[in-house]
Amino acid sequence: MSSRVPSDLDLANMLADAARAAVLPYFRAPGLAAENKDAGGFDPVTAADHAAEVAMRELLQRHRPEDGILGEELGRIDGTSGRQWVLDPIDGTRAFLSGTPTWGVLIALNEGQGPVLGVIDQPYTGERFVGGRGIAEMTGPQGARPLQVRAMRDLAQAILFSTFPEVGSAAEGAAFRAVAAQVRLTRYGMDCYAYALLAAGQIDLVIEAGLKPYDVQAPIAVIEAAGGLVTGWDGTPAQEGGRVLAAATPELHAAAMELLAAHTGD
Amino acid sequence: MSSRVPSDLDLANMLADAARAAVLPYFRAPGLAAENKDAGGFDPVTAADHAAEVAMRELLQRHRPEDGILGEELGRIDGTSGRQWVLDPIDGTRAFLSGTPTWGVLIALNEGQGPVLGVIDQPYTGERFVGGRGIAEMTGPQGARPLQVRAMRDLAQAILFSTFPEVGSAAEGAAFRAVAAQVRLTRYGMDCYAYALLAAGQIDLVIEAGLKPYDVQAPIAVIEAAGGLVTGWDGTPAQEGGRVLAAATPELHAAAMELLAAHTGD
Repeated sequence: MSSRVPSDLDLANMLADAARAAVLPYFRAPGLAAENKDAGGFDPVTAADHAAEVAMRELLQRHRPEDGILGEELGRIDGTSGRQWVLDPIDGTRAFLSGTPTWGVLIALNEGQGPVLGVIDQPYTGERFVGGRGIAEMTGPQGARPLQVRAMRDLAQAILFSTFPEVGSAAEGAAFRAVAAQVRLTRYGMDCYAYALLAAGQIDLVIEAGLKPYDVQAPIAVIEAAGGLVTGWDGTPAQEGGRVLAAATPELHAAAMELLAAHTGD
Repeated sequence: MSSRVPSDLDLANMLADAARAAVLPYFRAPGLAAENKDAGGFDPVTAADHAAEVAMRELLQRHRPEDGILGEELGRIDGTSGRQWVLDPIDGTRAFLSGTPTWGVLIALNEGQGPVLGVIDQPYTGERFVGGRGIAEMTGPQGARPLQVRAMRDLAQAILFSTFPEVGSAAEGAAFRAVAAQVRLTRYGMDCYAYALLAAGQIDLVIEAGLKPYDVQAPIAVIEAAGGLVTGWDGTPAQEGGRVLAAATPELHAAAMELLAAHTGD
């Protein structure tokens, strides 16, 4: 019987596989429709988003009926185990709608103290970044590679990413720009893919504001497994979202946190 | 003998294949070194950039010794045929250094009046966008697909891309923002990949300034083959670079050009 019960890691991969199959037929499909779920902004929900979360929930209800689920599309189901699967079927819906290969499927397992396992999956490129349970690995066009942040300690040499140049509130934006002014290079537009690049040792900092729990829990697990740090801008745990600072090294983390605090008054 | 002489299209594909092979070993390689070729800014030249252009030039000198070459890395060789191959071995070196899969190899053939054949190739994702000589097609993870711009005519519904939020000079930046303020969605960070997405019918406008001929000639050929328009901000030919406006439809092109002119005084 035990062979029928997938491990958490196997199950996370099964969820990612199911999400890929659900999402890919919609990606770059002509005439893709998007609803506006938030009349005040641009936050499209696609059929792909919904289909992928349904597919993942079906697997969880079959294999982990005792666990809770928090999903971006379909809300929360409380479990009895104290464990919660945290799902964002398409992180980066605007990237998805624009056809860029930089959105992702986010899957995390949280046992109460924080995410212990995370997957960032990019279905179109076939890349999967997995961290936790002793694993820190990506697979993709270049095969399997270990995930390891790089040893960047000098803010002046660091590469910083954020999804939008308009980061959060006016004060948050000013704080972000204070860090951006000190780094070697600032780039935009990558959504969750930026966290994956940090775990892969390609970039050094990600700074964002206004995140939701399902935006950040998989990145936390993947980056921590690769040796990096993810916290709030004030150094507190980031698993609930909000203002998020991810860094390759403690030195960069401290330098960025100091600049952010100086400009937000925290 | 004629079977030994590749067509222009075959040769363009051979160049792209050679560039892929030269570049990919360097992409996401640990410890990738970058020189600064411009002390005033951040414009790294990688070994990959050089290796890819050398590989493409060798093929051109073997198969088209009478044609001229203009390359981003190694300058210009005048030919005797009146034809010129225009090469950018890595468009988006900052994207390349950051590990994002959104840089590209650009190859164009210009017969004097403008580019008649263009290739935008993304070696890591395996995507190739080809336009000209009666062809408008992409190949990639989803197989082969025709390239066709979409019939977007309403600026308020359009998706706009530019590589950096800081577009050109102060006046150019203001002009860009005047368009950005009218569209549905503005995104950044894609370099030549944005032009490929426009040709693929995913986005509607690309606006940039300060481009070089080798940045824009392949995009011109690919987008024109897909039914779109690429000109300067003032509607003149864009093959020499500078301020570039790419649009899916004449209506969007006219609407964007009017806003740009109002803010640059042209």
